Amino acid sequence: MKKLINDPKNVVAEAVAGIAAAHPDLVTVSYDPIFIVRKDAPTPGKVGIVSGGGSGHEPLHGGFVGSGMLDAAVPGPVFTSPTPDPILAATIAVNGGAGVLHIVKNYTGDVLNFETAADLAGAEDIDVRTVIVDDDVAVKDSLYTAGRRGVAGTVLVEKIAGAAAERGDDLDAVAAVATKVNAQTRSMGVALTAPVVPHAGEPSFDLPEDEIEIGIGIHGEPGRARIKLEPADAIVDRLLAPILEDLPFASGDQVLLFVNGMGGTPQVELYILFRRAAEVLAEKGITVSRTLVGNFVTSLEMQGASITVLKLDDELTELWDAPVQTAALRWGR
Amino acid sequence: MKKLINDPKNVVAEAVAGIAAAHPDLVTVSYDPIFIVRKDAPTPGKVGIVSGGGSGHEPLHGGFVGSGMLDAAVPGPVFTSPTPDPILAATIAVNGGAGVLHIVKNYTGDVLNFETAADLAGAEDIDVRTVIVDDDVAVKDSLYTAGRRGVAGTVLVEKIAGAAAERGDDLDAVAAVATKVNAQTRSMGVALTAPVVPHAGEPSFDLPEDEIEIGIGIHGEPGRARIKLEPADAIVDRLLAPILEDLPFASGDQVLLFVNGMGGTPQVELYILFRRAAEVLAEKGITVSRTLVGNFVTSLEMQGASITVLKLDDELTELWDAPVQTAALRWGR
Repeated sequence: MKKLINDPKNVVAEAVAGIAAAHPDLVTVSYDPIFIVRKDAPTPGKVGIVSGGGSGHEPLHGGFVGSGMLDAAVPGPVFTSPTPDPILAATIAVNGGAGVLHIVKNYTGDVLNFETAADLAGAEDIDVRTVIVDDDVAVKDSLYTAGRRGVAGTVLVEKIAGAAAERGDDLDAVAAVATKVNAQTRSMGVALTAPVVPHAGEPSFDLPEDEIEIGIGIHGEPGRARIKLEPADAIVDRLLAPILEDLPFASGDQVLLFVNGMGGTPQVELYILFRRAAEVLAEKGITVSRTLVGNFVTSLEMQGASITVLKLDDELTELWDAPVQTAALRWGR
Repeated sequence: MKKLINDPKNVVAEAVAGIAAAHPDLVTVSYDPIFIVRKDAPTPGKVGIVSGGGSGHEPLHGGFVGSGMLDAAVPGPVFTSPTPDPILAATIAVNGGAGVLHIVKNYTGDVLNFETAADLAGAEDIDVRTVIVDDDVAVKDSLYTAGRRGVAGTVLVEKIAGAAAERGDDLDAVAAVATKVNAQTRSMGVALTAPVVPHAGEPSFDLPEDEIEIGIGIHGEPGRARIKLEPADAIVDRLLAPILEDLPFASGDQVLLFVNGMGGTPQVELYILFRRAAEVLAEKGITVSRTLVGNFVTSLEMQGASITVLKLDDELTELWDAPVQTAALRWGR
């Protein structure tokens, strides 16, 4: 295993220190317990938004802290949920009196620890609402999950809920729009290689040189099928079919099409996938009116990608377009 | 070799089609010859800016086409210079009457083909100026280069020259600021693995499981030394020392610190490198006043990173901060 790290046990703390050094205009960092918080938090009267989960998926979640998106991100150890402690501390730090929304990817550990933190925050008179993200259509239950996994769609939930909070929506409304985005989002991924967790030092699973895993999770959890490598267009078709059947998306829909890299796949390949996915949607009469392409929800250095489709309406489009200023996603003013 | 592609010979054309499908608000694409051009080009009275080079370094250059940066990007085959033909066509497409700046990474093929295109454009009465980027301090001459190579600093030249053109500077002034950025920028990189060129189908070079290459080029060209893997902090020190000696940077300087991923390195590692680089600069009394972290100048799926330091002054800082709207870099209005 070759990695640009020092001691595997310091990976998260050192990376977070790097984020603090790189983005002092956007965030400040708490080291004990570890969380990343928007520089001007709390914003009085604004709903606070906290997300988090195991590290190794960067820029998720720390790269999305800033104006118009998250108020705080709580990174756990690599591929391991943060404990309730830092989640509670982050929740307190971002509470501006209008309550706090927790956006939680659906993994058993994350759900449990965010729930405990929400209970503890409640005991301190902070109104906490929780939205669980479970956009992955690949498998019904998985290695670390009862029910569907939360994967790349999490970025869309965080962006749109963040915009709703920024414009002054109350906690009920912000939770409702986050719930709606999750309900209208579907994702599925593919892996060509396995990630290497620093303290483990070897690939999380074996994948032969001529095989790929369809329906992979973002921790390398098993998907639907292990198949021989196919041309990119055939792989896109395999990922899109279950996505489009599941909602279902229909002719006339407006969607956001998001092609996400898992960390180790060159951008040129992501655009090849995007091209085919846009073609398939056009053939079905679905209009791609918003797009996102890049490495946003990764699995360390895993080679692979995922496709996410979000069914838009006027409200979601307006919130998607709203200004955002974070390390990994920014536009407008 | 596993890649998310169809036929290796269609990689660039299909990726460019993906860029066109993903970013219709920013760019349009010419397929014969292939180049990517800002949607509203040419802008009458504005200096046009064209860059380009072999593909496989995305988001360089196509991801930087848009308001406040490039007017056109010309992608050659993977790791191979574009011919003069598409460079000329792009130059004509962006000429708004105020002349065109070519920003060229210092590789023999690129320099020659851009020069030929500039001559042909001159014959059509387009005033073309050329700035060669050669920010890599690793080696004096290299596999494809007489003199220093152009690497990650290219992004900084493109951003700042783009801002100068956008505010209405004339061709002399835009060329002068691009020349100044290049003169004040130094970079050096490290590789942990080799990239795999699609049509070759195997790694560009062999790098044993416990070794890294210090001073690597962005096509995997040899660097200064092949050494055993070291902790990240030691590697940063090895990359920064020649950078800081070369300009030389001095106590009291304001700099932009840019940690660039080569494509296959997780973002968490880039922030670990950033943390150490910022520490070293602080120890030397150098103030990091602007930052950039991420995969901007890549070498396909190569694992590795580079560090770039740009000595700032008020003018360069103002131009860096100016609004930019491209696929890979955007902020402001």
